[in-house]
Amino acid sequence: MNNKLWGGRFEKETDPLVEKFTSSIDFDKKLYNHDIIGSMAHARMLSKCGIISKEDAALIIKGLLEIKLEIEDGNFEFKPRLEDIHMHIESRLAEKIGPVAGKLHTARSRNDQVALDMHLYVKEKISQVVKLLDNLCKSLWGLAEKHLDTAMPGYTHLQIAQPVTLGYHMKAYFYMFERDKERFIDAGKRSDAMPLGACALAGTTLPVDREYTKELLGFSKVYENTMDAVSDRDFVMEFLSCASILMVHLSRISEEIILWASSEFDFAELDDAFATGSSIMPQKKNPDVLELIRGKSGRVFGNLMAMLAVMKGLPLAYNRDMQEDKEILFDTADTICACLEILPRVLLSMKFKKENMAKSLDESFADATYYAEYLVKKGMPFRKAHEVVGNMVKYCIKNNKKLKDLTVMELKNFTDDFEEDLNFGKISVINNM
Amino acid sequence: MNNKLWGGRFEKETDPLVEKFTSSIDFDKKLYNHDIIGSMAHARMLSKCGIISKEDAALIIKGLLEIKLEIEDGNFEFKPRLEDIHMHIESRLAEKIGPVAGKLHTARSRNDQVALDMHLYVKEKISQVVKLLDNLCKSLWGLAEKHLDTAMPGYTHLQIAQPVTLGYHMKAYFYMFERDKERFIDAGKRSDAMPLGACALAGTTLPVDREYTKELLGFSKVYENTMDAVSDRDFVMEFLSCASILMVHLSRISEEIILWASSEFDFAELDDAFATGSSIMPQKKNPDVLELIRGKSGRVFGNLMAMLAVMKGLPLAYNRDMQEDKEILFDTADTICACLEILPRVLLSMKFKKENMAKSLDESFADATYYAEYLVKKGMPFRKAHEVVGNMVKYCIKNNKKLKDLTVMELKNFTDDFEEDLNFGKISVINNM
Amino acid sequence: MNNKLWGGRFEKETDPLVEKFTSSIDFDKKLYNHDIIGSMAHARMLSKCGIISKEDAALIIKGLLEIKLEIEDGNFEFKPRLEDIHMHIESRLAEKIGPVAGKLHTARSRNDQVALDMHLYVKEKISQVVKLLDNLCKSLWGLAEKHLDTAMPGYTHLQIAQPVTLGYHMKAYFYMFERDKERFIDAGKRSDAMPLGACALAGTTLPVDREYTKELLGFSKVYENTMDAVSDRDFVMEFLSCASILMVHLSRISEEIILWASSEFDFAELDDAFATGSSIMPQKKNPDVLELIRGKSGRVFGNLMAMLAVMKGLPLAYNRDMQEDKEILFDTADTICACLEILPRVLLSMKFKKENMAKSLDESFADATYYAEYLVKKGMPFRKAHEVVGNMVKYCIKNNKKLKDLTVMELKNFTDDFEEDLNFGKISVINNM
Amino acid sequence: MNNKLWGGRFEKETDPLVEKFTSSIDFDKKLYNHDIIGSMAHARMLSKCGIISKEDAALIIKGLLEIKLEIEDGNFEFKPRLEDIHMHIESRLAEKIGPVAGKLHTARSRNDQVALDMHLYVKEKISQVVKLLDNLCKSLWGLAEKHLDTAMPGYTHLQIAQPVTLGYHMKAYFYMFERDKERFIDAGKRSDAMPLGACALAGTTLPVDREYTKELLGFSKVYENTMDAVSDRDFVMEFLSCASILMVHLSRISEEIILWASSEFDFAELDDAFATGSSIMPQKKNPDVLELIRGKSGRVFGNLMAMLAVMKGLPLAYNRDMQEDKEILFDTADTICACLEILPRVLLSMKFKKENMAKSLDESFADATYYAEYLVKKGMPFRKAHEVVGNMVKYCIKNNKKLKDLTVMELKNFTDDFEEDLNFGKISVINNM
Repeated sequence: MNNKLWGGRFEKETDPLVEKFTSSIDFDKKLYNHDIIGSMAHARMLSKCGIISKEDAALIIKGLLEIKLEIEDGNFEFKPRLEDIHMHIESRLAEKIGPVAGKLHTARSRNDQVALDMHLYVKEKISQVVKLLDNLCKSLWGLAEKHLDTAMPGYTHLQIAQPVTLGYHMKAYFYMFERDKERFIDAGKRSDAMPLGACALAGTTLPVDREYTKELLGFSKVYENTMDAVSDRDFVMEFLSCASILMVHLSRISEEIILWASSEFDFAELDDAFATGSSIMPQKKNPDVLELIRGKSGRVFGNLMAMLAVMKGLPLAYNRDMQEDKEILFDTADTICACLEILPRVLLSMKFKKENMAKSLDESFADATYYAEYLVKKGMPFRKAHEVVGNMVKYCIKNNKKLKDLTVMELKNFTDDFEEDLNFGKISVINNM
Repeated sequence: MNNKLWGGRFEKETDPLVEKFTSSIDFDKKLYNHDIIGSMAHARMLSKCGIISKEDAALIIKGLLEIKLEIEDGNFEFKPRLEDIHMHIESRLAEKIGPVAGKLHTARSRNDQVALDMHLYVKEKISQVVKLLDNLCKSLWGLAEKHLDTAMPGYTHLQIAQPVTLGYHMKAYFYMFERDKERFIDAGKRSDAMPLGACALAGTTLPVDREYTKELLGFSKVYENTMDAVSDRDFVMEFLSCASILMVHLSRISEEIILWASSEFDFAELDDAFATGSSIMPQKKNPDVLELIRGKSGRVFGNLMAMLAVMKGLPLAYNRDMQEDKEILFDTADTICACLEILPRVLLSMKFKKENMAKSLDESFADATYYAEYLVKKGMPFRKAHEVVGNMVKYCIKNNKKLKDLTVMELKNFTDDFEEDLNFGKISVINNM
Repeated sequence: MNNKLWGGRFEKETDPLVEKFTSSIDFDKKLYNHDIIGSMAHARMLSKCGIISKEDAALIIKGLLEIKLEIEDGNFEFKPRLEDIHMHIESRLAEKIGPVAGKLHTARSRNDQVALDMHLYVKEKISQVVKLLDNLCKSLWGLAEKHLDTAMPGYTHLQIAQPVTLGYHMKAYFYMFERDKERFIDAGKRSDAMPLGACALAGTTLPVDREYTKELLGFSKVYENTMDAVSDRDFVMEFLSCASILMVHLSRISEEIILWASSEFDFAELDDAFATGSSIMPQKKNPDVLELIRGKSGRVFGNLMAMLAVMKGLPLAYNRDMQEDKEILFDTADTICACLEILPRVLLSMKFKKENMAKSLDESFADATYYAEYLVKKGMPFRKAHEVVGNMVKYCIKNNKKLKDLTVMELKNFTDDFEEDLNFGKISVINNM
Repeated sequence: MNNKLWGGRFEKETDPLVEKFTSSIDFDKKLYNHDIIGSMAHARMLSKCGIISKEDAALIIKGLLEIKLEIEDGNFEFKPRLEDIHMHIESRLAEKIGPVAGKLHTARSRNDQVALDMHLYVKEKISQVVKLLDNLCKSLWGLAEKHLDTAMPGYTHLQIAQPVTLGYHMKAYFYMFERDKERFIDAGKRSDAMPLGACALAGTTLPVDREYTKELLGFSKVYENTMDAVSDRDFVMEFLSCASILMVHLSRISEEIILWASSEFDFAELDDAFATGSSIMPQKKNPDVLELIRGKSGRVFGNLMAMLAVMKGLPLAYNRDMQEDKEILFDTADTICACLEILPRVLLSMKFKKENMAKSLDESFADATYYAEYLVKKGMPFRKAHEVVGNMVKYCIKNNKKLKDLTVMELKNFTDDFEEDLNFGKISVINNM
């Protein structure tokens, strides 16, 4: 006979290669606390419904709390042949309290148990990510407020387009990350459903009280359909989607600062504490942190893709393929939290080189649009004004001048609409709406 | 000089290869109506703000409406050298109303113009998808209500696990698609921001009224930050994420019906009108529609991945890479709408073979959990009950029996807890909570 | 009865929605020529083996050639209800030559027919891509040879690291694209197997001669296993993999030139014929072509991901999901060919600004490694030398000097190993091995 | 001053958050052996070229060997602040042999060092994967040879299409995995280039001998271009591509066996040692191993996607984003090796249920194509024959018969071409070409 907890009908021992291949304990031990919290709530519900005695429930809960401490103190032995965190905890419980431990899994399956653990984990991580996003947004806003008057070139196609301010630029990111926050909060709303009671897929004939378990665990609703409850990984996929969009934003701000920290842009300098050096080139000061953030976007996209491919075409209800959700989810949550934690510190410790930004702006034709808009105000159709200023730019390039170097007399060669009220040399940066 | 609308400063004509390579008219003509609606609102705003005259605005709007009709009647000539739908319309407007057409692009850039068109498109498509999802959910619910008593095997790991009903199974999908609906609605909320007025990236010195344009176009808010307004494609990425999760659900239900329609399962038969035949095997009746739905999940995942990769690491503000968003978005919207349109018709025209479902259930050990729960009710710890029933199953397999064939006398060989109150032969399907 | 060619056993007409949903004619008409070539070879084989008469074969081949001309002259009507290019051609053949047309599909199924068309297409495209890569490599080498002495900064982490030459930099890309060429050639080798004769999946009882068809069609081998022949899309996935790696290279060179064309780097200027302007900012000269190439990498990655997801978990043999391979493949082939066609022209028409490259190098500490290696030659361990030169750099930054500004006297403050044989001011660029 | 090995020019200590964020030691310690082998070869080369003394080289090599043993014996302390495996080893070497350790990094950078380690790892893994594939192919062939006469239904669209044999079906997979083998071997060919000597990106002024290092390390060539040598991760992307295609095959065979092991198909039974049970349903015997293999395809696709996204648009030469390659590569290699190791054992221990396969075939219309081909041999055009047999199938379904139940008299109602030479009842399975 097979000595697994599920081994009743099996004639042979499981092959050790299978144990190793299917074991998830290396990564799902991360869920120990969620698992124990869930089991305690389940035990309380079973006892409230008279399915197990109050004494048994108390014994189980006491045992679970001890196991929690053992794990946290590093006094818990993990063994591949016990497959996963659920079996580890139940098996340890049996060592502690004997056959009563066997009552804990009443009206429960690993299918709804692991679904619960994953929901608890996602809810916790969303709350953490929202806090980190909040902090990042505050940092960006603070930085922006300090640089409301710091003129810098605004780019499109990485070509200088029009003047902006560093403050305004930072606020663009502020709004992106605010959207990320909203998106995670909406995802959290949908992940807030309690799967316990679904058992393997079809619920149970025992008189359970799912609403009670839900209350104990702080969920706002119970899954309506038990087959859905164990088959659903939408909350994981949605978390990964939100994470991917967030990583797009993080990769964009990282790219920009990497550009700004290059000696050609030279708009910003990273603090020594947030830069790294080279093993061969003593002069180097490298923006490794930002490169890694940028690179890690790939990792998160890959995780999303992996999860979608895993779930594609799976028949209801639970399939073992879904075990792959864990490493994907944990790695994603760890990655975005680490990026969100470090980025504000990089940003707040950086030095921005206002004079270089101003110089780059000054040497550009970033003011061209304002000349065009001046002509529009004089009544010229925009397309015509665009063409006129285009010719002025061409003239300036050939004669190595800037637009503001052109006198009104020179300007009149392009169109008579230019008059003495022209005042561009002084106008620095548009007050962005 | 270059004869493009933006050709002012260019010395040479654009290379024809470049025109072909950068042209988007083949696909962005799909946006003609959104572009015209946006331009009409923009013209009205310009005139309200005194930037152009009422007469000019009226002329522009009349011209735009005529162009709309020309396009819809197939009387409009598309030319690669005019690059995109925006240039096509503006250029045709110039043919119609002369230089006044040049005033339309005042206080606007293609960057905010295309962002507007994309927002209008996404809002429209979300509303369409939500309606289609609604219809699918109604179909599923209707089907489910008809089959509340149709017993069938419930599976985990594609192994028969416990009895369920076809109705309950269908409702699992109902809840999945309900979540999809919510998710698209939330995405819609975030896509509901008006980008016009952002111009290239930095707004304009002209006295525009963005709130007015917003009202005219039925948006609920204006982008706070103009650099964000033209750099943001979150609403596309979020639409694609929602679409990908939806396709996971569609692929799962398709997979299941493909299984059910196999001669080995034989739980369902597709209607002749919704199946296809073979060019070589006259007997075949193939579930091509469902296979295609399943396959198209790959296409949508790929589109999401493409968009994330496109946006990764782009510096602010607009970059031409972002033109790639269009085919990705259009293809995704078309794909999910087509799948959502056809699936309810496949489902509602199918014939379910109740007797085969019942037979499969009957020949299985799907009732094992109920024996185990019976023992639990008698006071046996679940783990012990699991083991006892495991041994019963092993015994049945060896002796080629079903559980319900076992008499109470035989059952007592496994445990004395079995008594005459046992009544399993009659219990068919659990009433799923 | 159903009036489809496969409609024999069907009671009802196919629903029009199904026709539209499953129809592939909009995109697979691209295969018309491959399909006709394949059919002609098949007809010749059937006649050689005595399965159809010589006269019938001649009639069929004549008809097919006429159809080819009709399609090429635009005189061929495409109809969604005829599903795909195979049915279109066969159906038109029947109109032309009557019931004899019905003999063409003997010992053939659409499954092996479409597999053949796809193989022919992939082989053709690989040969085209290899030619385009060859041309790109030649352009890069030519460019490199012109710039063997053009010093420029070499970067790591986008920080100036050590001097290189533009020629050497271009050769790095040369070697990347050479690897791409090899990779496509290897993929071509594996795609060079002939699937006809596999029929639906199990071959045929008719006495066909697959070796003969193989010879006629110029393949080097026949698929050993007929189930594999119709289930296999490895050759598509491998093509997409090669294309994705190629797009990584194309995106990297594009990114670099976009950087170089920025006014901050100002290392290069795009030719007017290969740049584009702005609809609002008259001064702009945008590297749109390169941005699009960079962006299109996302599209190709997405296509690869789509195809992998489509094929994942499909049971043997043919499944309709596999129809999704076509748009994925065609779009990828078109995309990489377009990028490969335009890039050499962009590169060869660009102007490189040697003086700016030299200036950037001159103002940097790119020579630091050479000082360190000087000390190593004097016997100092490298780690020590690295530290010494690190201190020199720190000193220079504080005193606003360059390394070459330091006299031997000053250098001796850092270590006595510096002597009069030091000659760094003159050394420009390393001759890269 | 910063106490990092590269800290020379840094004023401040690295922030601990940065150390944690950028540290790779947790995963790159996997490369310890490759790193030590590479360093030993490098030291030998330095001494051969007279850059360091023979004594120093001997000391370094001895130290490295000791470190190797320390690591393998678990006596080596890993510390996040030492960043990566390279710094760990060098730093430990310094503890052991003093300042001479500082000479090892002469004419080397972490950029070429890590590139070397990755090449050595990929070469090793390719060789391992090829062996495992070889073993899988042998197992499949062996299994196939045993089942050359085991008739089973062949499917298209998961509908029974034509008879095949289990042996023939298994050989289809044999050929897929043979292609995988070839593909990995070709990838190995391209990964077989030695990057050392490239240093940071631009080589070195020291008189190194790269050919000698190449010989020592068993590479077949040296990278031609040093910038390419440190920027290139093609060999990782190609490995991941090959792995993804392999996983497609593995997911397909897994899917099929999962289907076969369902009670509806019931074509095969997994050995108890290679199946797992349920925590709630005592009767279950689940194909978890195969579900996990199928699921792990998602993980590998995700890794490929991650890597492509990481590399997209990176300027030359090394960027820190590339550190992300390691976990991606290691996880992929571990995953495919584990799947390849376990699958043959699952296959060889399975029991195939010939009688059920035969029964399923017998009850189907899998023989329809043979009736059609019979008519073709009598001279009927295939399309006509297809229609005739389609009508026969329709007739059989209505009258609840099989084709072989029809007498020649009955058959003549469909066409006179049927004659007494008809012998279908006896023909079992086509001898597949």
